[in-house]
Amino acid sequence: MPFRKVAIIGLGLLGGSIGLAVREHLPGVATTGYDADSEVRERARELDLAQTIADDPAEAVRGADLVVLCVPVGAMRGAAQAIAPGLSEDAIISDVGSSKQRVGKALAEELPGHHVIPAHPVAGTEQSGPDAGFASLFHQRWCIVTPPEDADAAKVAALVKFWKSLGSTVEVMDAAHHDMVLAVTSHIPHLIAYTIVGTASDLEEVTRSEVIKYSAGGFRDFTRIAASDPTMWRDVFLHNKDAVLEMMDRFQADLGSMRDAIEADDGEAMFDLFTRTRAIRRSILEQGQDDARPDFGRGHE
Amino acid sequence: MPFRKVAIIGLGLLGGSIGLAVREHLPGVATTGYDADSEVRERARELDLAQTIADDPAEAVRGADLVVLCVPVGAMRGAAQAIAPGLSEDAIISDVGSSKQRVGKALAEELPGHHVIPAHPVAGTEQSGPDAGFASLFHQRWCIVTPPEDADAAKVAALVKFWKSLGSTVEVMDAAHHDMVLAVTSHIPHLIAYTIVGTASDLEEVTRSEVIKYSAGGFRDFTRIAASDPTMWRDVFLHNKDAVLEMMDRFQADLGSMRDAIEADDGEAMFDLFTRTRAIRRSILEQGQDDARPDFGRGHE
Ligand SMILES: NC(=O)c1ccc[n+]([C@@H]2O[C@H](COP(=O)([O-])OP(=O)(O)OC[C@H]3O[C@@H](n4cnc5c(N)ncnc54)[C@H](OP(=O)(O)O)[C@@H]3O)[C@@H](O)[C@H]2O)c1
Ligand SMILES: NC(=O)c1ccc[n+]([C@@H]2O[C@H](COP(=O)([O-])OP(=O)(O)OC[C@H]3O[C@@H](n4cnc5c(N)ncnc54)[C@H](OP(=O)(O)O)[C@@H]3O)[C@@H](O)[C@H]2O)c1
Repeated sequence: MPFRKVAIIGLGLLGGSIGLAVREHLPGVATTGYDADSEVRERARELDLAQTIADDPAEAVRGADLVVLCVPVGAMRGAAQAIAPGLSEDAIISDVGSSKQRVGKALAEELPGHHVIPAHPVAGTEQSGPDAGFASLFHQRWCIVTPPEDADAAKVAALVKFWKSLGSTVEVMDAAHHDMVLAVTSHIPHLIAYTIVGTASDLEEVTRSEVIKYSAGGFRDFTRIAASDPTMWRDVFLHNKDAVLEMMDRFQADLGSMRDAIEADDGEAMFDLFTRTRAIRRSILEQGQDDARPDFGRGHE
Repeated sequence: MPFRKVAIIGLGLLGGSIGLAVREHLPGVATTGYDADSEVRERARELDLAQTIADDPAEAVRGADLVVLCVPVGAMRGAAQAIAPGLSEDAIISDVGSSKQRVGKALAEELPGHHVIPAHPVAGTEQSGPDAGFASLFHQRWCIVTPPEDADAAKVAALVKFWKSLGSTVEVMDAAHHDMVLAVTSHIPHLIAYTIVGTASDLEEVTRSEVIKYSAGGFRDFTRIAASDPTMWRDVFLHNKDAVLEMMDRFQADLGSMRDAIEADDGEAMFDLFTRTRAIRRSILEQGQDDARPDFGRGHE
């Protein structure tokens, strides 16, 4: 492993999981951690999320050859400013943020002359905070690395190796393309889920208690996604605005076509779409990107 | 138990599960089954989904005091016509269809003078066919019974008792209200899922292979729902058109507001909604309507 010491800034789901995964997969590598919240630092010490939990961000990154920022994307710039005084000259500064263009720009602006190589592990759950992390979060998942054009190739290779060690498959991609891909595979699904759960809570004809009782018909799946961290997701939409708006317009146009089909009793158009969509599910299961058991293997006691 | 013999018409996920659940929970009750598809009948015999599998629908219901139609809602009228010659005078004819007003009307028209009491167990998976059924499908799930106004109270009570025996909690409701409630908790979520999976498959900027690879960010959840049976769902939208269109208009309006919030960088509006939606998830978990483990308990090997 090209790294001797990894510093993790932000000790929630992602930061905690990286700490635990490094301990499991890279036992020779030292870890330090820092979180802006002193209660989170306390909990991180109890849970042993990193070998050392520092009370100061610059202290946490001192001597580290890899720094991973695991804070909401809106907090990346501030976190970069806070660690700057402690950074080694040839350390790699990376992150796990869910949007990449604006994060990459903010980090480059705050840390000129440093090796900034943004990344995004496409792995998570609806939980957040220091208790949510687990070492196998990145297993069999993709991690997208989005180096700037002038990035040092050896540094990029070292970061790719790091993520592979934690169990991920790595793809190197342009940040703008990342933001478009994730808008459709992650950001729009979250926005839709938040919205329909909001719609359902505000109805007059149907009570909230009915919505909850009869949620097993499909709705409950959306409520899991809509239980994700509000700060994280607000930041994602603020920081990937253009791609999200573009994908949203496509989705709304397609929803309008389905509305027309229902209005016109056009069963054939519905049957057509509903048949095409099954192929995508099959491919996702074939590629090990979801649990193939019915209902994701949910318990039916 | 008020029934000696239950006839099941349509031996897919729902019909098969009822057969298996009766065997487990009501071992003294006889079961017969019929499916329009001879291969399904063959498979149902191998799987022992009912004690007798008849090759003729009227034969299957002969002597039954409860008949449950488990076919797509668009096939309910035809199934009612086919069983009519074999029905006992005081048999209850019920069903499991996902929409209730039009199904109730079709059954009442085809079976005048018979005890038609529609119902809908709010339980299922994305799988269909005779191999998909399992005895515990109805455990801890709600079953909604929608009797016509002039229904025989003793017959309604008998049907309620039947569903309770299979592990469900039962609610009696007006068919029109059922259709409104299910439009929001089940039909619109399915329509949205089918639509976004369609949108994602048709993009030029993002390949299908990318959509599949990076689906773990939220999209894969929608693909599970969008893998549900096309015939069943086409029929649901054709048969619950009015309520679906009404709920769809609400959802589209709310989506428009979220679009405006993103456009205007209104982080507060987003944070507000994303916080409100968590309460619904909490209630669903408290009431045992979903698996509380992160990510539905999906495997992270
Ligand atoms: N959750 C997912 O599924 C997922 C998946 C892939 C990528 N990501 C990305 O990963 C990042 C972290 O997400 P998460 O789910 O791990 O969130 P999380 O569990 O909420 O953890 C984030 C932690 O960072 C702390 N923090 C905030 N600002 C900070 C700062 N300036 N310096 C140090 N610590 C700070 C937070 O403290 P406070 O609570 O006091 O603010 C919190 O403890 C985000 O950028 C997100 O987009 C998330
Ligand atoms: N799936 C769910 O999650 C769920 C939940 C609650 C309620 N429901 C409702 O339950 C009903 C059945 O759904 P399912 O999921 O069990 O579907 P399924 O697995 O596809 O089973 C339906 C079976 O009915 C057969 N069939 C069609 N027309 C028939 C007829 N006229 N007479 C006899 N058999 C006929 C079908 O044969 P072919 O395959 O040859 O057509 C198929 O074997 C639908 O009304 C649906 O709305 C479904």
